[in-house]
Amino acid sequence: MHGNSRNSMTRILISILLLGPVAFGQRYCDYVRPLTGTNKMGHTYPGATVPFGGVQLSPETDTLPYEVNGKYNKDVYKYCAGYQYTDKTIVGFAHTHFSGTGHSDLGDFLIMPTTGALQLNPGTVDQPTSGYRSGFSHSTETASPNYYSVLLDRYNIKAELTTTTRVGVHRYTFPATQDAHIILDAVYGIYNYPDKNVWTYMRVENDSMVTGYRQTNGWGRTRTVYFAMKFSKPFASYGFQNGSKKQVYKGFWRKFDQEHNFPEMAGTHIRAYFNFGTTTNEQLTVKFALSPVSTANALLNMNAEATGRSFDEIRKTGEDAWEKELSKTKITADKEVMKNFYTALYHTYINPTVYTDVNSDYMGLDRNVHQAEGFTNYTTFSLWDTYRALHPLLNLLQPARNSDMISSMLAHYDQSVHHMLPVWSNSANENWCMIGYHSVSAIADAVIKGTYKGDANKALEACIATANHDQFEGIGDYRRLGYVPEDKSGASVSKTLEYAYDDWCIAQMARKMGNEEVYNTFSKRAEYYKNVFDASTGFMRPRLSNGNFKKDFDVLNTDEAGYIEGNAWNYSLYVPHAPEAMIGLMGGNKRFVAHLDSLFTMQLPDSFFAHTEDITRDGIIGNYVHGNEPSHHVAYLYNHAGAAWKTQERVRMIMQKMYHPQPDGLSGNDDCGQMSAWYIFSALGFYPIAPGSDRYELGSPAIQTATVQMENGKTLMITAKNQSDKNVYVHDVILNGKPLNRTYITHSELTGGGELVYVMGSKPKKK
Amino acid sequence: MHGNSRNSMTRILISILLLGPVAFGQRYCDYVRPLTGTNKMGHTYPGATVPFGGVQLSPETDTLPYEVNGKYNKDVYKYCAGYQYTDKTIVGFAHTHFSGTGHSDLGDFLIMPTTGALQLNPGTVDQPTSGYRSGFSHSTETASPNYYSVLLDRYNIKAELTTTTRVGVHRYTFPATQDAHIILDAVYGIYNYPDKNVWTYMRVENDSMVTGYRQTNGWGRTRTVYFAMKFSKPFASYGFQNGSKKQVYKGFWRKFDQEHNFPEMAGTHIRAYFNFGTTTNEQLTVKFALSPVSTANALLNMNAEATGRSFDEIRKTGEDAWEKELSKTKITADKEVMKNFYTALYHTYINPTVYTDVNSDYMGLDRNVHQAEGFTNYTTFSLWDTYRALHPLLNLLQPARNSDMISSMLAHYDQSVHHMLPVWSNSANENWCMIGYHSVSAIADAVIKGTYKGDANKALEACIATANHDQFEGIGDYRRLGYVPEDKSGASVSKTLEYAYDDWCIAQMARKMGNEEVYNTFSKRAEYYKNVFDASTGFMRPRLSNGNFKKDFDVLNTDEAGYIEGNAWNYSLYVPHAPEAMIGLMGGNKRFVAHLDSLFTMQLPDSFFAHTEDITRDGIIGNYVHGNEPSHHVAYLYNHAGAAWKTQERVRMIMQKMYHPQPDGLSGNDDCGQMSAWYIFSALGFYPIAPGSDRYELGSPAIQTATVQMENGKTLMITAKNQSDKNVYVHDVILNGKPLNRTYITHSELTGGGELVYVMGSKPKKK
Repeated sequence: MHGNSRNSMTRILISILLLGPVAFGQRYCDYVRPLTGTNKMGHTYPGATVPFGGVQLSPETDTLPYEVNGKYNKDVYKYCAGYQYTDKTIVGFAHTHFSGTGHSDLGDFLIMPTTGALQLNPGTVDQPTSGYRSGFSHSTETASPNYYSVLLDRYNIKAELTTTTRVGVHRYTFPATQDAHIILDAVYGIYNYPDKNVWTYMRVENDSMVTGYRQTNGWGRTRTVYFAMKFSKPFASYGFQNGSKKQVYKGFWRKFDQEHNFPEMAGTHIRAYFNFGTTTNEQLTVKFALSPVSTANALLNMNAEATGRSFDEIRKTGEDAWEKELSKTKITADKEVMKNFYTALYHTYINPTVYTDVNSDYMGLDRNVHQAEGFTNYTTFSLWDTYRALHPLLNLLQPARNSDMISSMLAHYDQSVHHMLPVWSNSANENWCMIGYHSVSAIADAVIKGTYKGDANKALEACIATANHDQFEGIGDYRRLGYVPEDKSGASVSKTLEYAYDDWCIAQMARKMGNEEVYNTFSKRAEYYKNVFDASTGFMRPRLSNGNFKKDFDVLNTDEAGYIEGNAWNYSLYVPHAPEAMIGLMGGNKRFVAHLDSLFTMQLPDSFFAHTEDITRDGIIGNYVHGNEPSHHVAYLYNHAGAAWKTQERVRMIMQKMYHPQPDGLSGNDDCGQMSAWYIFSALGFYPIAPGSDRYELGSPAIQTATVQMENGKTLMITAKNQSDKNVYVHDVILNGKPLNRTYITHSELTGGGELVYVMGSKPKKK
Repeated sequence: MHGNSRNSMTRILISILLLGPVAFGQRYCDYVRPLTGTNKMGHTYPGATVPFGGVQLSPETDTLPYEVNGKYNKDVYKYCAGYQYTDKTIVGFAHTHFSGTGHSDLGDFLIMPTTGALQLNPGTVDQPTSGYRSGFSHSTETASPNYYSVLLDRYNIKAELTTTTRVGVHRYTFPATQDAHIILDAVYGIYNYPDKNVWTYMRVENDSMVTGYRQTNGWGRTRTVYFAMKFSKPFASYGFQNGSKKQVYKGFWRKFDQEHNFPEMAGTHIRAYFNFGTTTNEQLTVKFALSPVSTANALLNMNAEATGRSFDEIRKTGEDAWEKELSKTKITADKEVMKNFYTALYHTYINPTVYTDVNSDYMGLDRNVHQAEGFTNYTTFSLWDTYRALHPLLNLLQPARNSDMISSMLAHYDQSVHHMLPVWSNSANENWCMIGYHSVSAIADAVIKGTYKGDANKALEACIATANHDQFEGIGDYRRLGYVPEDKSGASVSKTLEYAYDDWCIAQMARKMGNEEVYNTFSKRAEYYKNVFDASTGFMRPRLSNGNFKKDFDVLNTDEAGYIEGNAWNYSLYVPHAPEAMIGLMGGNKRFVAHLDSLFTMQLPDSFFAHTEDITRDGIIGNYVHGNEPSHHVAYLYNHAGAAWKTQERVRMIMQKMYHPQPDGLSGNDDCGQMSAWYIFSALGFYPIAPGSDRYELGSPAIQTATVQMENGKTLMITAKNQSDKNVYVHDVILNGKPLNRTYITHSELTGGGELVYVMGSKPKKK
């Protein structure tokens, strides 16, 4: 067969694959299981959202006290996304949620429909009827992209949720009653410690419209969310409950009955209720627009996206948006993989989230209102997690959006009084969670791959300023000593290693931009990982400011032993930008492979698990921890030690063990899509161990075929011949008809389109 | 002498008078005593401000606890303006103050310069050195328009204050020290109950600039003030004290030493300090710009008004602005009257205050940012007080500003979820203080006198909507029954009477606009005062919803007996729009004059004074209470009962007894200039007892001459021939050469300019 006819055949094949299951009446959305990760520690939410949507409308299943006897209530941790699958009650539906985070916030504006005698507190699990909560059953629950539905048993109310980018839409189907209520609870929140609610303000604008805002002091220290709420029919009456602390000011509000039909309320703990009469199966729709800026902007958002459109229309628009994004990557695979893949892709396209009003206004980190000129402003940057695979995935599949995300990081930098890029930012707040300055990785990755549309010089300046911020987390010592000393700044090994990688990113970016000086400076810093390597133990080990390694070295300890979310075993492998050099330090390929094998096979003592909060035993293979991020590149390191077949074996095992399309299907926090992005890359057969490089390590695809529509108009077709659960070993890789005699593939090869064929077999090909 | 030469003479005389004391090197500003009213209950502040300035920079002399043993600490009431003349210490200088109010708020951003060991709490009066406060002495204190200065004894620091409309400027002259500090205390506030501080946010932008905001829940329930602060030289170091309640969120701020040189702080109770080294007599200037909208706007305000200008330049600009406004009304009089007059004029030109940024942005009542298009937005509307004489005075002497104030009231109406005009509004908050809907009086007065430049139809609509707001303070019952029933809404007599007057205003306005229907409706309502007149006692008396008068009628009681800030004796005279009809009800001229005489001469029992919080015994003449507003028109009522000479006698007595240019010189709260406006009118010889009418009652001028520059370019020259402390009786009034054979003068006569001559004598002219 000569070239031309091969190309024709390919085109036909692509055409068929492009149709995908849609040709048979099924949509990629149908494979998505939003409930995945809602049990235990996945911390995902099952509710409705659109791709990168600013509204995440989802059920809340409990209201635990944040403190019990003055101490943090550990059970609260399960509720980072508001929902736990095993719970029996629903307290309502709130409009903002993080997806998969390991700390939390949000849960703004809980709405609950009820009937009968009005109750304004949520009640408890033990005594649900002591409040307004309702029991529910998974048998009546539906969760799909941009749609969630459940029957509230107690009230016989069917609840349905959908969204636009900036508006949450509720539809409640009521029984016939003269006592139907919609409760708007602004007391509820996620991680809701007693003083979290700083201020709430509400105005009843007319008989069907309410506006206001809620200001909180949570993970985001100074955070305000504005809203406009529109009912599909006028309420008969309404009122407020003000549970605020005593407002002793001798005001003149006392003149009024502020609790009944009085149109304005303010305080720290406010609940509102709206009363209706309903006929049998009457549907009441509530449209709830958000804005980071003002109630006027929330109204603008409402009018631009939801006014005049039915629940069903809005639902369909959002589903279509999901289908459009998901179908840019069409795969064929066995059913479990199909579900895993599109669920993972769904979870990767949730974050970061849009944080701009329809008129381009957004709230800046400096607490001034800014205009996003030439980009959409995003928030929710969980960068310690997402620089690894989520941003590289977006950089490959959503480069325009990823470029806007980088513009958003640079706007953050401009507005930062610390003159730093984001570390972990949300809703115009920096919460400083985790370590490193990993914005630079995402930025360098985009600059190097040519996808960042903004000013690269400015981006480089921001990266350098951030990396030279001596007051931040030991950077001053790091620059002076070549490592972060553990006696000065904890998790010092993790910091040293991650700073060295980030510095390498800056160097790569500078090289690409022709800035030799910066390249040299940061290339030197990129080697500082060597300064914490302890040849005597073969591990990266905490050092003190006097130059000595710290004594009392426990290679399994993850608890303030020099590391964070990982122990010496896992973190010692974190030199993603120089794996060969690292392998050299650790004794060469053979010893390194044996070391990795030990990692995956060793037996951990029970005591280990006492310290891991957000992963389960299921998230661990030997001492390899997939439930936390620092090891996400580890399985791919075999490639660099001449044992690619072990990479292939391990990544297939991890995919199979750690991902299931069920509520308990995630082995740790999804972390704003990082866990899921790992899956997408791995299932497609490659993974970027060092973003900022143009290389992806080849692994073992879990799909049969994949057709990836690039934004540049090119199409990449991936075929995994003979792939099966047993045929996990790659025998050949052929790119556009030519064997690829290496264990990596480059960004331009992927985005150039064409045909990538993996030939699989049941036996390892050891060379 | 024929006409022409009389006119020439007049012109020459006017020219001389126009020069006034300036010709002799003295300025009208020199007569102003800002300390007047700072002792006891005047509630004025002695600090710096420009006419109608948005910044009121003034010393604070104590920090009393708002509550003692869980109960309101009555002593706090003395500190409505932050300063009490008899106090021995100063705790600092804050940027916002009400002038003369009877409840309070504000006191934002206290600045205190200190030396030596840093102390961050204000300390107590008993133990001043337990904190940062300093002793001071009146001998080193200077207060003049737009300038305040005092020596802080403890630190030997000279403090000087001046302002622009939107910027407070401090100049501190330090001794030589390595330990000079500027404390910025955002915990301090006026009426500072424990939970008043909702949130404070600060950013150290660079080595000499700080921005931020403070959000409070006080008299203004939801209020935020933004600032930008610029030091004249870089600070050596800085820090914060965060006294907020536990912020239990497991944030990552703990990574940082947030107390030293960390540039961002947020919480409920924040104090900042900035450290300097100073040489002997080194002057440090602090410019502190405010904005109702944002820190970005505060910076705009700073740059527009203060950047690049020295303390002395700014001081002079403000003094010149005062001189310009004061010298529009040039008087000659004895020295005490000169001081009283210009002090009073100063106090009337403090309120309302500018509430618009230099780019026309302001915060609206709906908590959205608005643009003031075609007007300057004002706030601080103490309307129950100021509709009586302050707004009429502004309408006469400052009609352009008064028109903008009315536009501000109408913007408030547009933004009001209650669809009401302001009652008592400040800083984008309605605090509902006192009774009535007296915006309509100020609006009608301007429409009727032709000074309102906006849309009169819209203004009328707003007045009607407000007057028909049935849920507000018994209006529904008032409209149905013709009076407010005491069993439904307290202070029912006061409300009925004031509503009736306000309704008359609406009627007058409608008539002027040719709207007969509204005129008729509201003219009818204007007579509802008759419905609370009890012929059996001769007093206006509380009625119940069943139509009966309330039993247990005590004509002296001011305490929840159907009246507010007045008793039956005073309030029964409140029919300013129909004095003749009222006199008729009360038995005709003779009985009425006797009744008034009793009011001024009766002896009150001691028990009376137990219930009057904000006036002193000095504020009362017989049972006539000048320290509160409801009687401000009363002395002029003799005019309507054929006893004008008694009006003349009483008003001169009141001027003499109730006004002194000393700290204890005001007999009650100045109430945003209402007390002072009464003086200005009365001293000039006329008073508007019923704003909304074009008439001013003639009294007895206390000046020798007055030359009033009208905004229309005309000049009114008033001469009181033979006037002296004894010659208080008016024998003749001659307007432009013609005798004015009546006891009133009209607005157009005053604004038409020319010459108004009072011929005075020592004996009453009884006809």
